[in-house]
Amino acid sequence: MHSNSQFTDTFITLAHGNGGRYMRELIDSLFARHLANDCLDTEADAARLILPDAPGQWMITTDGFTVEPLEFPGGDIGSLAVHGTVNDLAVSGATPYYLTLNAFIEEGLEAALLERIVIGMAGACHACDVKIVAGDTKVLRRGQGGGIYFATTGVGIKTAAVKLGLEQIQSGDAILLSGTAGDHGTAVMLAREQFGLSGTLQSDAASVLPITRALLEIPELRFMRDPTRGGIATVMNDMARTRQCTVRLFAQDIPVHEQVKTVAGILGYDPLYLACEGRVVAVVGKGHAQQALTAMQEAGCPDAAIIGRIETGRAQVLLVTELGGERILEELEDDPLPRIC
Amino acid sequence: MHSNSQFTDTFITLAHGNGGRYMRELIDSLFARHLANDCLDTEADAARLILPDAPGQWMITTDGFTVEPLEFPGGDIGSLAVHGTVNDLAVSGATPYYLTLNAFIEEGLEAALLERIVIGMAGACHACDVKIVAGDTKVLRRGQGGGIYFATTGVGIKTAAVKLGLEQIQSGDAILLSGTAGDHGTAVMLAREQFGLSGTLQSDAASVLPITRALLEIPELRFMRDPTRGGIATVMNDMARTRQCTVRLFAQDIPVHEQVKTVAGILGYDPLYLACEGRVVAVVGKGHAQQALTAMQEAGCPDAAIIGRIETGRAQVLLVTELGGERILEELEDDPLPRIC
Repeated sequence: MHSNSQFTDTFITLAHGNGGRYMRELIDSLFARHLANDCLDTEADAARLILPDAPGQWMITTDGFTVEPLEFPGGDIGSLAVHGTVNDLAVSGATPYYLTLNAFIEEGLEAALLERIVIGMAGACHACDVKIVAGDTKVLRRGQGGGIYFATTGVGIKTAAVKLGLEQIQSGDAILLSGTAGDHGTAVMLAREQFGLSGTLQSDAASVLPITRALLEIPELRFMRDPTRGGIATVMNDMARTRQCTVRLFAQDIPVHEQVKTVAGILGYDPLYLACEGRVVAVVGKGHAQQALTAMQEAGCPDAAIIGRIETGRAQVLLVTELGGERILEELEDDPLPRIC
Repeated sequence: MHSNSQFTDTFITLAHGNGGRYMRELIDSLFARHLANDCLDTEADAARLILPDAPGQWMITTDGFTVEPLEFPGGDIGSLAVHGTVNDLAVSGATPYYLTLNAFIEEGLEAALLERIVIGMAGACHACDVKIVAGDTKVLRRGQGGGIYFATTGVGIKTAAVKLGLEQIQSGDAILLSGTAGDHGTAVMLAREQFGLSGTLQSDAASVLPITRALLEIPELRFMRDPTRGGIATVMNDMARTRQCTVRLFAQDIPVHEQVKTVAGILGYDPLYLACEGRVVAVVGKGHAQQALTAMQEAGCPDAAIIGRIETGRAQVLLVTELGGERILEELEDDPLPRIC
């Protein structure tokens, strides 16, 4: 999918990286407009590799990681770089097999810190049963990097015959979330000294493979996505815009840690726009919603919940508040939150 | 391949990214030591993907690109990011099919510059007949990036039954180089205002697919590599160290542009250590050296030459000078030349 319209901004701003509308415009009207081909779908989490003689559905995905600080409560940029790419394959319905790794390291980085991060990465690979098979390292002059940036590419295979994708979503479908919203974004912000806040909150960063494997057994599973940059609200807006439908969410049903509510309130963020790194949003036919919820719970997600539904109507995301009012969850615009993942 | 010895440096320096000994130590004693698995070979240009049900030899490779300036005579970081990954597949004997792209963009970058670069990338993809099938974009805060960094991962298939690799090299084999040495490194240095030099030299940045395709037809083709960071001398040292053999090169046979000699002389560099981005080093059985040379010339490489041979003896690279003397081409050590590719 790409746009025929030109990219009209003069300079790249932080908002072009936040997961919302500006980023979509950059990708569609600049990258995808020039690089369009029949395999590139900017709305998908992973692309299919058409391999002659290979009957399986081999999938590929790629992701960059710039989180700051490099170590945060519940993870580090190394394990995050593995989990993030594993998760993009997982929500596309694939089992990940192989990763490649690019490291951009800033001159002056402490080797001991780098080693802890690589150990974090190795642990995540082991836990997810994936292998890093190729890599490259570049060192950047002091002041031209942010400690470490990683890029990981993942290859996996879709074994199930399930058709998943935004285009499978139907009116009446139920929307599920596997755990609390916004933990990763909040934990990373808390870990930044600039805010002068502290807390015990952990990032939710983790592999979602146990969740997606359980969900793949559920009939009428339509779509899965890990709500990273831009959070739950961005996934919901992607669904509403792509399917031209109304997404109705119920605030009282969306699990949010008390600490996330408090911190987000102080800093002026809505938890529904904050990144998760170990959650799954799933859309299933309404007759199988309870079964999907049970599957999530049995996969180790005690806070999983049915949080809303797909309705015919205007392309918008409506949040029914705890007091019974309604407000529109707009697409994320110029709210920059750099280096959150 | 990995080392059991620990990484003993305290901080990462620019030399850890220069392609030489320090970089190898970083990769082997830190990354590969923790991430070791049966598919990871830090001496190979591409790794084989073992795909159930896929009889072909699918290969994967990945590379990061940080070149400064972002546009240079003969190319830009966009076309370089395509060619670099295409070339790593090409020298492994594969035909590239698919790429993924990660873009790390610094806040404040001119959109018009970014667009020219993406257009350069699209042109290179078209020329190499590869598709970018997945991507990700991150925006870095001003002062935490260098304009643009790219990471590309490539997937291709090896169709020929040829066994290629450092381990195939034998005593008596001939060493060929497809064109002049050090053009890319020199052109990029000239393009940096910091040196106060200028010239008409173009980077050799290009796809090497026409060359590798022609070479794959030659019997007793043992090994191919594109001599990027660390240049010709680094590839030769990799051969000598891995095969525990002497590599003898003849200075008078190594093609070097007059302008490269001059500029390298002024700046104190040896052209044999400067990066190429469109050359191939090939090792072939001596009985087929002339045939390989003709194949290179017919593939559009008028400057191609037989530059040396493999000999039994101490693991070292000996350069026979134009005056008939001999000197050792040492492994590149702490000579930092950041952001050359």
